[in-house]
Amino acid sequence: MDTSAPQVLSLDEIQRRVDVPRLVDEIARGFAAYSAGRAVVPPVGYLTFERPPGDVHIKYGYVVGESSYVVKIASGFPENSALGIPAGDGLMLRFDQRTGALTHILLDRAYLTDVRTAAAGAVAARYLAPAQVGRIGVLGTGVQARLQPQLLRNVTGCTSVVAWGRRRERLLAYAADMRTQGFEVEPVGSPTDVAAACNLIVTTTAAREPLLSAEAVRPGTHVTAVGADAPGKQELAPELFAKAQRVVVDSLAQCADHGELAHAIRAGTVRLEEVVELGAVVAGTAPGRRADDEITVCDLTGVAVQDIVVASHVCGAG
Amino acid sequence: MDTSAPQVLSLDEIQRRVDVPRLVDEIARGFAAYSAGRAVVPPVGYLTFERPPGDVHIKYGYVVGESSYVVKIASGFPENSALGIPAGDGLMLRFDQRTGALTHILLDRAYLTDVRTAAAGAVAARYLAPAQVGRIGVLGTGVQARLQPQLLRNVTGCTSVVAWGRRRERLLAYAADMRTQGFEVEPVGSPTDVAAACNLIVTTTAAREPLLSAEAVRPGTHVTAVGADAPGKQELAPELFAKAQRVVVDSLAQCADHGELAHAIRAGTVRLEEVVELGAVVAGTAPGRRADDEITVCDLTGVAVQDIVVASHVCGAG
Repeated sequence: MDTSAPQVLSLDEIQRRVDVPRLVDEIARGFAAYSAGRAVVPPVGYLTFERPPGDVHIKYGYVVGESSYVVKIASGFPENSALGIPAGDGLMLRFDQRTGALTHILLDRAYLTDVRTAAAGAVAARYLAPAQVGRIGVLGTGVQARLQPQLLRNVTGCTSVVAWGRRRERLLAYAADMRTQGFEVEPVGSPTDVAAACNLIVTTTAAREPLLSAEAVRPGTHVTAVGADAPGKQELAPELFAKAQRVVVDSLAQCADHGELAHAIRAGTVRLEEVVELGAVVAGTAPGRRADDEITVCDLTGVAVQDIVVASHVCGAG
Repeated sequence: MDTSAPQVLSLDEIQRRVDVPRLVDEIARGFAAYSAGRAVVPPVGYLTFERPPGDVHIKYGYVVGESSYVVKIASGFPENSALGIPAGDGLMLRFDQRTGALTHILLDRAYLTDVRTAAAGAVAARYLAPAQVGRIGVLGTGVQARLQPQLLRNVTGCTSVVAWGRRRERLLAYAADMRTQGFEVEPVGSPTDVAAACNLIVTTTAAREPLLSAEAVRPGTHVTAVGADAPGKQELAPELFAKAQRVVVDSLAQCADHGELAHAIRAGTVRLEEVVELGAVVAGTAPGRRADDEITVCDLTGVAVQDIVVASHVCGAG
């Protein structure tokens, strides 16, 4: 049984196997397991290169009591663009937790990382977005700007997007793309314009200075920030954390280190004790949105339990 | 170019590609690169499991200026034996250092780890064994007890083995196996009997107390110890380090932490300043054996540069 060769799945096959509604449920349960301390996720391994510049992240872990463990290797080589190949790449390996046998090689080219990040946004919206989402606001025009509305559609039913991007031509290309996916898209001239029109906002940029001010965000809005995944990145004004009635994060430890939360704590606009983990909200041990007119913020930096869950999702059997 | 699928190599194919004489040369150069500080080898990642017990090691690194980087995942699940499958398993992944592209998946089932460990023993013998090796002494009856003489044959030309093992029936099975590989094998009753008959000794056991005494080892003998790869393991009496004229290790940092060297330093029979790395001996910046009647000791704990080298060996192109 365990001496059989591992299954090698191509990107095409992996994409065929992703079932968004089920994945969002599974990612929610994954966050709950993480926040309950049932996910074993050691520190990330790093390799860095100088000529050409590049970096590699090695993430690995498992959920106690499930059947598998997962190793993910993701790389970023910025100069790849000049060679006509994507800067980011990656794969996942899935092993049997009872024997150590390698069961699946997922050649997903980093697609599953994108999908599990978008799925986390959908989980956040399920627990934190207002009951009626009129229009989804998007800052940014990249992969997450595309995937987040697609997965949010499953949770909110909303297909109307108001989008802003720093570069006008990319914004228009984004709008055209999203229209082919069945969305109505209104490109606007500033993050404030987005906030004026939307009560669910997702920030997906690589900004290193705040884009979204506290003043711009109206009562009854939920904001999910997914761009700040490393020190120095920042999309939200720290004051938004003071204005918000509820601040939720995927990982207290990680967000306090390098998420939006880190900036807000440094600015003194929120205290760590006021913040709860998304997994606790999913489990019901911490409240999500409590009133229609609350402002809620969710800071997502990405945790390895999402990789574990999405690999199991694609391979079948938890 | 880089978007092409990675090559998946089976154990059979991998075994066909290993060319021992060339591998020993390449491993020697790998040690030299390591000791010269050109190998980038971050700390090992670990996952541990309780039910059933198991552990996973994730090693990764590269040699600056070469074309690839390597990630190795190795597991040990002792209860596998009850299921009729090997306790140890593993694979290696090889990536392009310029783009991050995955080029090879080596499904070697831990074979390459065994081979690169044996190749290190051959490198040690090349620089430290006496000019004429009459008989090779082996403590232990496992995988390294088999592989070390096979690779040493390339360096020493010697096909005569004197072997000892704790369990008599395993020792006789080992002797029978090795005879089919073209060796003359004399099973003996103690490690001292081995030392009395041999001027090149390899210790390959999982012992946690010294097996080989200082008194037993004759002048003009080289001893390579490969069993102690984790804290608590020990095969050599610490006094042997005081008796030896030359002590060489694969990694000063690692051997001082959990190799034979760690026990000897604690016992006060050697000082770290007296010890040199095998890579320095290969590079000629430290001497190897200087006289026929010297006793030399080489402590091998295994370093990731060996994994990098053996993966490149199998995949072609450094």
